[in-house]
Amino acid sequence: MEVTNKFITIKATIDGEPQESDFELKIEPFSLSVKPGSNDVIIKNLYISIDPYQINRMKTVSSSQKTSKFSTQIATGEVIDAYGVGKVVASGNPKFEKDDYVVGLISWGEHSISHGFILNKLDPMGFPLSYHVGLLGLSGLTAYAGFIEICKPKKGEKVFVSAASVSVGNLVGQYAKTLGCYVVGCVGSPDKVKLLKEKLGFDQVFNYKEETDLNSTLERCFPDGIDIYFDNVGGEMLEAAISNMNLYGRVALCGVISEYTDVGKRASPNMLNVIYKRITIQGFLSGDYMHLFPEFISTTVEHLRTGKMHVLEDISIGLESVPTAFVGLFRGYNVGKKIVQVSDDLGDK
Amino acid sequence: MEVTNKFITIKATIDGEPQESDFELKIEPFSLSVKPGSNDVIIKNLYISIDPYQINRMKTVSSSQKTSKFSTQIATGEVIDAYGVGKVVASGNPKFEKDDYVVGLISWGEHSISHGFILNKLDPMGFPLSYHVGLLGLSGLTAYAGFIEICKPKKGEKVFVSAASVSVGNLVGQYAKTLGCYVVGCVGSPDKVKLLKEKLGFDQVFNYKEETDLNSTLERCFPDGIDIYFDNVGGEMLEAAISNMNLYGRVALCGVISEYTDVGKRASPNMLNVIYKRITIQGFLSGDYMHLFPEFISTTVEHLRTGKMHVLEDISIGLESVPTAFVGLFRGYNVGKKIVQVSDDLGDK
Repeated sequence: MEVTNKFITIKATIDGEPQESDFELKIEPFSLSVKPGSNDVIIKNLYISIDPYQINRMKTVSSSQKTSKFSTQIATGEVIDAYGVGKVVASGNPKFEKDDYVVGLISWGEHSISHGFILNKLDPMGFPLSYHVGLLGLSGLTAYAGFIEICKPKKGEKVFVSAASVSVGNLVGQYAKTLGCYVVGCVGSPDKVKLLKEKLGFDQVFNYKEETDLNSTLERCFPDGIDIYFDNVGGEMLEAAISNMNLYGRVALCGVISEYTDVGKRASPNMLNVIYKRITIQGFLSGDYMHLFPEFISTTVEHLRTGKMHVLEDISIGLESVPTAFVGLFRGYNVGKKIVQVSDDLGDK
Repeated sequence: MEVTNKFITIKATIDGEPQESDFELKIEPFSLSVKPGSNDVIIKNLYISIDPYQINRMKTVSSSQKTSKFSTQIATGEVIDAYGVGKVVASGNPKFEKDDYVVGLISWGEHSISHGFILNKLDPMGFPLSYHVGLLGLSGLTAYAGFIEICKPKKGEKVFVSAASVSVGNLVGQYAKTLGCYVVGCVGSPDKVKLLKEKLGFDQVFNYKEETDLNSTLERCFPDGIDIYFDNVGGEMLEAAISNMNLYGRVALCGVISEYTDVGKRASPNMLNVIYKRITIQGFLSGDYMHLFPEFISTTVEHLRTGKMHVLEDISIGLESVPTAFVGLFRGYNVGKKIVQVSDDLGDK
């Protein structure tokens, strides 16, 4: 059976801050049947993840951008693959059956076709499907693995998280609290300050837009210094964090969103500090920690059920909202994990 | 018995590139006898280490220089402590006897008084005493521990070392060769290029002063990318190394000499590269690895005896040469470990 498939794509490469007008909705014919002999999986997309890192796949590739070797460019006018949850419409793959819920690499579209690569059957375990896009999905694994494996936290240690209200940041802060750490978050609005303190139990939260000297801010928030910095923003915040770190401090580099849309912007941390204080700065990607998925899920589910962790989701409805949802990431509009609900799992498959 | 003791000190704090005129030789009365009941050790200094990091102890302390919390300032007009080899003149400390050779924290002077802190009896093992200041001393341990523990080299890996002809750098390259790595060094003169290639067996060596684009230089020298960068210089070299690193690359931050005498100078590595390539940047000090000293000595002595490693020393004679020796470090004058021989171990104790 053939239907039409709507999907969101880029009109051209994007090198500055993204705008809604950089994107367009395209419609193409799409077959809901699997070709005989193929092991494709045809998926109806339900919830899709909206992540800042995608901007790095949308940039113009110049010969000096050696990073491009390590991430796949998004081609103009083509389907954009993204993490999400869907339902199987048809499958030629013995691992999946019609009506299975699946989680993994789907797309910013109504339907996806998967070759089974980065796709798993999903048991919702009684939680809303959207949870499996965010805190029980890759954002959660990123926070869990990055914090536990890279930062190696000990009870009582002083933890700083930037972009602390969004997908990964809020979870790092919550994991840190479950381990008995002192946690300070940095956010971009008074509402987010309040939310993280009151709902998530952060020890301190500051709004960086109200601070004039980040060094002094961190000195004030960390009278005993920083042991762990989970970095989502890069730039001056990384510099200030390094200046305020303790001996043997650890920096997990998860993202540098302040540098994504500003080619000239770079952090210039004081490397003499890094030497004298024996600081480790480590970049990581969650894909290297898939072996921790079962441990991450059981820990997180336990914390959710006992009320030690809470979900922060920011869900927009309808595929058409993807461009606005995406550009909003760079303007600080979202609170918690940004997700687009493409379909409500009712009606036609 | 009282004698006079000559020592080198700073006239004032030094914030730019050091000059000979920043130093002066002072003479003070000095007792060669131990006070009754004290456990002091009176030492005649023989060979003293001349190290770039000392400049960081000579700078003006401003409140923003948080590094100063982690290193001891050198006071104007006072004795400057430094690593070196000496001979015991008198001892109130049961661990040391008159005429013992000792290695550890002595001073830029003719004599030192030690409370036994960072001081050990020295068995020269048939090697010249000067070896125990450099390749069998802290420089050697720095190279060994930093390379083995921080860089975790594997046979065949591609290793880049900056400041490759001086104290630590040449040893890192030599250790890397003993482990079957591909080694490229960066130096500052054609003579040094030749020396490292011909005497030490580096695979490639370049003179950074002859290169216009360090990124291209490293691309040329590392067609298969860099796995390990042992950084002694910081600045643009660190940036270019990160750009040319492979997945899971490791950077040992040992020193950033290009930033020591230029307050405004900082490396701005591409942190997005650090994330995508899962790079680890780790600062370290050799003092954390004293437990490796026996292993380091036995390995290095074995390599020396079998001819797999060679010593590169640059020895000046006489305490008066300390200022010239020290400022020369920042002008690239030394080849190998810079040492000043204060006394030849003959004559009066």
